[in-house]
Amino acid sequence: MNTLDSKQIKSPQDLKRLNIDELKEVCDGIRRRIIDVVENNGGHLASNLGTVELTVALHYVFDCPDDKFIFDVGHQAYTHKILTGRDEAFDGLRKNGGISGFPKPEESEYDAFPTGHASTSLSVALGLAEAAKRMEKNETEVAIIGDGALTGGMAYEALNAIGSEKLPVVIVLNDNNMSISKNVGAMSKYLTRLRISKKYSRMKTEIKRAVSIIPLFGDGALNLLDKGKRFLKRVVLSNKMFEEMGISYYGPFDGHDLGEMIEVFKQVKRKDGPKLVHLITDKGHGLKSATVDPEHSHGISSSDAPIGKDFSCVLGEFLHVAAERDKRITAVTAAMAIGTGLEKFALEHPDKFKDVGIAEEHAVTYCAALAAGGLKPYFAVYSTFLQRGFDQLLHDVGIGGYPVTFCIDRAGAVGADGVTHQGIFDLSYLMPIPGMTIMCPTDGTEFRQMLEFSLGFDRPLALRYPKSYFTERDHAPVVYGKWETIKQSKSNIYILCVGGRALDIAERAFDGGDANIVNARFVKPIDSDFLDSINRKGNIIVTIEDNVRIGGFGMSVLDYLTTCGNNVSFRALAHGDVYIDNRDIDEAFVMSGITEENLIKTVKSLE
Amino acid sequence: MNTLDSKQIKSPQDLKRLNIDELKEVCDGIRRRIIDVVENNGGHLASNLGTVELTVALHYVFDCPDDKFIFDVGHQAYTHKILTGRDEAFDGLRKNGGISGFPKPEESEYDAFPTGHASTSLSVALGLAEAAKRMEKNETEVAIIGDGALTGGMAYEALNAIGSEKLPVVIVLNDNNMSISKNVGAMSKYLTRLRISKKYSRMKTEIKRAVSIIPLFGDGALNLLDKGKRFLKRVVLSNKMFEEMGISYYGPFDGHDLGEMIEVFKQVKRKDGPKLVHLITDKGHGLKSATVDPEHSHGISSSDAPIGKDFSCVLGEFLHVAAERDKRITAVTAAMAIGTGLEKFALEHPDKFKDVGIAEEHAVTYCAALAAGGLKPYFAVYSTFLQRGFDQLLHDVGIGGYPVTFCIDRAGAVGADGVTHQGIFDLSYLMPIPGMTIMCPTDGTEFRQMLEFSLGFDRPLALRYPKSYFTERDHAPVVYGKWETIKQSKSNIYILCVGGRALDIAERAFDGGDANIVNARFVKPIDSDFLDSINRKGNIIVTIEDNVRIGGFGMSVLDYLTTCGNNVSFRALAHGDVYIDNRDIDEAFVMSGITEENLIKTVKSLE
Repeated sequence: MNTLDSKQIKSPQDLKRLNIDELKEVCDGIRRRIIDVVENNGGHLASNLGTVELTVALHYVFDCPDDKFIFDVGHQAYTHKILTGRDEAFDGLRKNGGISGFPKPEESEYDAFPTGHASTSLSVALGLAEAAKRMEKNETEVAIIGDGALTGGMAYEALNAIGSEKLPVVIVLNDNNMSISKNVGAMSKYLTRLRISKKYSRMKTEIKRAVSIIPLFGDGALNLLDKGKRFLKRVVLSNKMFEEMGISYYGPFDGHDLGEMIEVFKQVKRKDGPKLVHLITDKGHGLKSATVDPEHSHGISSSDAPIGKDFSCVLGEFLHVAAERDKRITAVTAAMAIGTGLEKFALEHPDKFKDVGIAEEHAVTYCAALAAGGLKPYFAVYSTFLQRGFDQLLHDVGIGGYPVTFCIDRAGAVGADGVTHQGIFDLSYLMPIPGMTIMCPTDGTEFRQMLEFSLGFDRPLALRYPKSYFTERDHAPVVYGKWETIKQSKSNIYILCVGGRALDIAERAFDGGDANIVNARFVKPIDSDFLDSINRKGNIIVTIEDNVRIGGFGMSVLDYLTTCGNNVSFRALAHGDVYIDNRDIDEAFVMSGITEENLIKTVKSLE
Repeated sequence: MNTLDSKQIKSPQDLKRLNIDELKEVCDGIRRRIIDVVENNGGHLASNLGTVELTVALHYVFDCPDDKFIFDVGHQAYTHKILTGRDEAFDGLRKNGGISGFPKPEESEYDAFPTGHASTSLSVALGLAEAAKRMEKNETEVAIIGDGALTGGMAYEALNAIGSEKLPVVIVLNDNNMSISKNVGAMSKYLTRLRISKKYSRMKTEIKRAVSIIPLFGDGALNLLDKGKRFLKRVVLSNKMFEEMGISYYGPFDGHDLGEMIEVFKQVKRKDGPKLVHLITDKGHGLKSATVDPEHSHGISSSDAPIGKDFSCVLGEFLHVAAERDKRITAVTAAMAIGTGLEKFALEHPDKFKDVGIAEEHAVTYCAALAAGGLKPYFAVYSTFLQRGFDQLLHDVGIGGYPVTFCIDRAGAVGADGVTHQGIFDLSYLMPIPGMTIMCPTDGTEFRQMLEFSLGFDRPLALRYPKSYFTERDHAPVVYGKWETIKQSKSNIYILCVGGRALDIAERAFDGGDANIVNARFVKPIDSDFLDSINRKGNIIVTIEDNVRIGGFGMSVLDYLTTCGNNVSFRALAHGDVYIDNRDIDEAFVMSGITEENLIKTVKSLE
């Protein structure tokens, strides 16, 4: 039986009939449901347990979908999904064919905009508010953003714009002092000062008294609102940052106190102009283990996830050892210390470790400057998030040619996180950058070799790899720009593989058959000597990569062969020109035709 | 004769011997020199006239190149160049083979880091400061950043990081209330409040009195410093924004008062931790016409620039007419209203025009939301600056498939602005985005047709064009995904051209000869029907584009032909895999082999 059946909650409208005790029961039910499903399917546990009450309060007060809710990042929208007709479908969370772990307009009219990357919600809210004004719709935009996402520069750009317009945008600051990793930076310290102020607890009492005298409905409420607002503003801290930007600040309030939040939202809803409501929440609220260690329970993989070894562990261990002997080593992350394998490094080398928060733009240019100043920076980042540093890669690292090493994790198809987190574009955006060297390790041994190589390399370098590898191989030493032949034969067939999965596919396809299998460990520069040696009429060359076809490895090989006078038969296996929302990595490869069967078929078609 | 010979200023060290009156003479001389050279060579006039005194004061107090100066954007570094051994070379400003209009480490040890795009300087300063600390160097990083660049989110990310570290970073806020276009947003309003405060003029008097009693040298100075700092802090405005972020705020001061600035910098230099010095400057100070209308004198083209018609004018006129009949039309720019042709539109349709400041990230996602809300947004942006919105293109516009039209100006080689501003990467970063349509107009007539087409188009659309076009042609109507044959012949030669310059090259090359010349007006999707019809053995296909080869149009055509079973002889003419710093557009094309002669040679080699 689904959680909400007993309360007949089919849509947020049904919430509005309930009293506060019933709403609390709904919250308890949702919390149990989230824990159950995430334990089975994986997903973001702590962040969703932290937003149960605030989401219920928002749906109670506002009128979604007429009012638009935009969940920043979107990894905290489970309660919203459960409340908006997707309680049953919630069993399929993150599963292929099931509902997404992030908001998705195709999935529900209650999801106003697709999110996945951090710090976009404020721009979205302002755009929707402007459109509503111009289309003469009477609606409120509500952006729910964490303190972590507020460290992203894009959020500040939007705050700057929101503060200068007079649109009814409500910013709900979900402040759990955590973000994905422990939060960093001046903004974090500033919010901490707001939180720990003695005024907070005093205000909580006062606000309760105040709201208790405000009639909830009728004209009386309106008369009291200005008084209420003045009261609220009097009790907020003396701080002025948001107010200086033209955004009315309310808070901080307890993000698990339904009654308090409902009153605050009701008042805020009736006021013109942009507002920020500062809520203090516990990430993992209601689940002891998640509250105790929310960073570790931020993202949980489902128990049936494939078992492999993680590249990130290799990175962490390598950098630890390297830092012991080379004082220039500096590891930089953008709020992803654990995900990228730097947790231990951060503890062992605090002076050589920098977590800049969710601020990839700053991170990339900061690394360029660290390198310009003589250090040896390693920026560990997920492929999909490095997209945000593209201009900085091209403009700040590339033009100066600074020796920054990018350790690009979660490259290729990512599975359950879905369409917003695919790492299948990085080869395409890295390859046009002049002077960028790109290597793809196929396993832990090779990754260690490549990291060793990086220590002596004095130009921009990208190491690009998925979460896990499966088959461990012996490898030839890394030589700049040279590929490695894994299986040599007298066959006229050459399979050029980028990454361990590609090698596995090729080896399985030609297990009994005959083909040359090559580990194209350098994606840029390509091994032109090797290509010259096989660019002969009658030869068949097939590339395999875990990246989109356009601008990828295969196209680059084809371009080289053609420019040199192409005599071979060529095909590339890569992801197609579509967004992949398949939540199963293996199936994503099937969808794209990057399989053993298709490789055999492709080779046959060229014979 | 060069300006400063009389003063024997060969390096900043020579400044330190001068008294205040002599320094003022130096400033006058520099100002005259900048005006003379910019009138001949083009360049940024107003911004450089606004920073003469502050740069002289910085060089007087700090010890560049041991102390590192990082000029944000870098378009205001002419005084710095003149003072650091490049007075003679200044005649060659922006010329091919001459000095760059932006800081460039290859050019001088005094240029700490290459800049060109906005809002990078704070990240650079922090990175260099961290490296200096770790390398045990005693130096100060000075970032000179305008109020416009402070609207960029990346600057905020860096402020956030700077505020949480205790490194000796000095931020000089060069506040001219202007940026490139008139500044916008909450931060701008906030700075205005600081500026217009009555305390400003009072403080100016007080500070002068105060500094007059602080001995300039010796131990006495140190004793008085804390007092001085306390005084400074007492007289700053009650505002707290920077202080809240952990950055000591000093100001505002008159950015043209040498004596005042020198005293302030001297005090600031001796203090630990991050500091921000707020200077008020007049953009175009000392040149009446530039002061009156600094936006128009922001960038001046040299008088011998090639004469063409501007795509930007076509855009402005079209949107004006379209907005009269379609209330959904919204034009968005990131501080580039004039450069992108929207100046008139902004005046005529203020409710349909949004200048978000130097905030491309926000701009792209904001447009996606405007479109999601039912409006029809056009984001007019320079190719090189749209790089900063790459993640937002891929993640926010692309996944939702929102009908945002990107009017990408200054695409291709840009000439005098040099390496940091080349628009030669956009096809490569746009093409991998699923669902993105890319069109390249060859002239004003075709651009108008394409804009008309965009009105009825309901998916993401990029229109990509250089500043000017030369040859105007008649055109067939625009049909989605279809190319246009400009010159039909029975020849087996097919020249597929992207953009007007490519067409001109092809027409000139085959003026007396025989070839099919095709306007590949859709770069994505490519015209597969047409390619199918010419994919016959014996045919020769050559593509021409004003983009880097890797990931560009040519590779995409080749990939299609090959996948279909390539029978033709193929070559692509495009820019190579290098950063282009050639300041002459024509020469940049020669360098890349995108010429009439090379086209003929290439075709011959395939015959």
